Amino acid sequence: MELKKQLIQIAKNAKSASGVIANLAASEKNRILEEMAEALKNNKGKILKANKKDINALRCAKASGAFIDRLELNEARLEDMVTGLLDVAKLADPVGAEIKSWQVPSGLQIHKVRVPIGVIAIIYESRPNVTSDCIGLAFKSGNSVILRGGSEALNSNIAIFEAINEVVKKNNLPDGVINIITVKDRRAIDVLLKLNDYIDVVIPRGGEGLIKKVVSCSRIPVIKHYKGICHVYVDDYADLNMAERICFNAKVQRPGVCNAMESMLVHRDVAARFLPGMLKKFKEAGVEIRGCPLTQKIAKAGIKKAKDSDYRTEYSDLILAVKVVDTFDEAVSRINEYGSHHSDSIITDDENNAREFLKRVDSACVYVNASTRFTDGYEFGMGAEIGISTDKLHARGPMALEELTSYKYAVWGSGQVRE
Amino acid sequence: MELKKQLIQIAKNAKSASGVIANLAASEKNRILEEMAEALKNNKGKILKANKKDINALRCAKASGAFIDRLELNEARLEDMVTGLLDVAKLADPVGAEIKSWQVPSGLQIHKVRVPIGVIAIIYESRPNVTSDCIGLAFKSGNSVILRGGSEALNSNIAIFEAINEVVKKNNLPDGVINIITVKDRRAIDVLLKLNDYIDVVIPRGGEGLIKKVVSCSRIPVIKHYKGICHVYVDDYADLNMAERICFNAKVQRPGVCNAMESMLVHRDVAARFLPGMLKKFKEAGVEIRGCPLTQKIAKAGIKKAKDSDYRTEYSDLILAVKVVDTFDEAVSRINEYGSHHSDSIITDDENNAREFLKRVDSACVYVNASTRFTDGYEFGMGAEIGISTDKLHARGPMALEELTSYKYAVWGSGQVRE
Repeated sequence: MELKKQLIQIAKNAKSASGVIANLAASEKNRILEEMAEALKNNKGKILKANKKDINALRCAKASGAFIDRLELNEARLEDMVTGLLDVAKLADPVGAEIKSWQVPSGLQIHKVRVPIGVIAIIYESRPNVTSDCIGLAFKSGNSVILRGGSEALNSNIAIFEAINEVVKKNNLPDGVINIITVKDRRAIDVLLKLNDYIDVVIPRGGEGLIKKVVSCSRIPVIKHYKGICHVYVDDYADLNMAERICFNAKVQRPGVCNAMESMLVHRDVAARFLPGMLKKFKEAGVEIRGCPLTQKIAKAGIKKAKDSDYRTEYSDLILAVKVVDTFDEAVSRINEYGSHHSDSIITDDENNAREFLKRVDSACVYVNASTRFTDGYEFGMGAEIGISTDKLHARGPMALEELTSYKYAVWGSGQVRE
Repeated sequence: MELKKQLIQIAKNAKSASGVIANLAASEKNRILEEMAEALKNNKGKILKANKKDINALRCAKASGAFIDRLELNEARLEDMVTGLLDVAKLADPVGAEIKSWQVPSGLQIHKVRVPIGVIAIIYESRPNVTSDCIGLAFKSGNSVILRGGSEALNSNIAIFEAINEVVKKNNLPDGVINIITVKDRRAIDVLLKLNDYIDVVIPRGGEGLIKKVVSCSRIPVIKHYKGICHVYVDDYADLNMAERICFNAKVQRPGVCNAMESMLVHRDVAARFLPGMLKKFKEAGVEIRGCPLTQKIAKAGIKKAKDSDYRTEYSDLILAVKVVDTFDEAVSRINEYGSHHSDSIITDDENNAREFLKRVDSACVYVNASTRFTDGYEFGMGAEIGISTDKLHARGPMALEELTSYKYAVWGSGQVRE
């Protein structure tokens, strides 16, 4: 009961603060974002010390090296967080921008304009830089934010939050513009997800388990990213040199991220020419291949047989499922059935196949002759990113400032009444 | 278990059909919509007979006249449904439209294009015309639809559905383009709302009880309309003649709809001049007034005292809550606190107040010098309407074809890999 009361109070504060920051001028917001960056710098010692505490606790608990690495802050990572806030200050303010306007026969002049969403809750795991990134993006887009990070990063997150919140206080902004939930009790999330009277949207960031839990509990709309099972399809009309470069990049350049390739499809007519060289390159890079029977046959030896589940797995690692397909249509249906509707690419010189692929593959980002690795707010020219949505409602694909806004219709009349 | 199996099958069919109709040409869709309209006409006898059955059952159950009226079909109402489908055929196809496109420094050409959402479930009450309206809008926007109407209208809905579905079959479209759930078991809704693997969005249409139930049970994103507690605020700089015409229209022209005025706010400085005439007009029209103490004093007699809850009630009837406010700021805060963020209007000749009102009132539609009654897809020039959203995510305000679409990023490269 105490927990619930406490969370309701936080959510209420956030809601009431959202009405104030919704109407801050862009110049004000930018100045404050620059002060927030400065505050991070000035509190470097405190933040690194708090982070050390989290890291030591993890070491005692014998956490994995990769896990500790994700959590660990150092001078360079802190500097990136500072730069992140400064970059957001430089982006155009989406709030107040006119999406379109028109006049209707009654004479009313209708303006569809961007407004902040209101209160955004972010539930996330590990990386403490998410704390400052999300504060920056939410603040610039005029939203209040409620942060609930992983308990393993609690000291780090509190230190980052406190440094930034000093700036909020100093600028006489209302309590509630930025909020952090510090209770370790896991039931806090369940309570939070029922506060749909105050919170407008929840963005969970983390593993599939977290996302599923949030979706099944939440009464608040959720924008989420389930998985990145991305495909590259090498068409029979592909430039095979280009295909090799792109497939290699999509798998190897950074295998742990969501826009890396997990499955490679190759048209039967080019398989014998394409696969031997490609598989050799993958082998040299330490990629484990799991292939269909024809892939195994072409490779001659050393390739594991792919199970059906291999084509549905996000490895986030140097493992690749390979399948030879008989037709273009088979490639498209497999991608729609086995993929995660995130990012998929066709390599082809046939414009018709390219257009059909773009049309029929039901993914947030569909590519012709490019690596799936480009699905990213920065690469898309959005300047930042709060995540990548595999949803179809509200926001799909990379999400940045515009995706953190809603709109309203502002209507000018001259005495119109309805007949 | 049988019920669950049956509903999963329907949802699966809808999902698989959605891939097909997503890529139908506009001309094809329009031709089929015209055939659907024709089919409604040709099956007039059957539909009216089925409706008679529903109506008779309600009469036996001693349902209210208003309830029966909402459910009843006649030649004129059927003709409206036919026209509705023909009108949707005439609207521009949103699918494939480019929202924007740009080139990024890597050389990638990014096109943000509209695509259908996929599978839309509509859960609704009473009016059988919703059946054909929703089929038309979903079909034109390239979405599969799953309909679950009220059990009191089941015979009518089935007759309408069957007439239209004949056209779907005749055109060799897949089973699953349009679907109706005919089991009366109320648990069907609970089961349906958990099928987030197949259904992309749920739009409930009906009373607050239905909406709340859907929100609390659903794992599928919901776009909803809670209430319409709309305000007109008569500013101290208002043209009082205009204010009288607009307030009268907003309350009286059609009191049962969601964009009718439920609360009228009047600036203290004009209250004594404005209220006596206005209240007299309302009285003549049979409007019951519930007022604040000052309103009561100005009116002298015959006005009930408004309780706090009166200012939070959607009467949908000839009842109006009236409050005199001390300042413009008080009007804005009251609207944001007591209203339902649907439609609110200021009557003023002061441009500064007008602009501040448009900016600070947090509603889907905010008006200057016009009746709130204009919040409507047709009046906004959208040509149709599937509902009005009081949400802020995905769609806000009147929703028509564009609001039934998502988007994808179609990206053209020339061999780009990520460094």
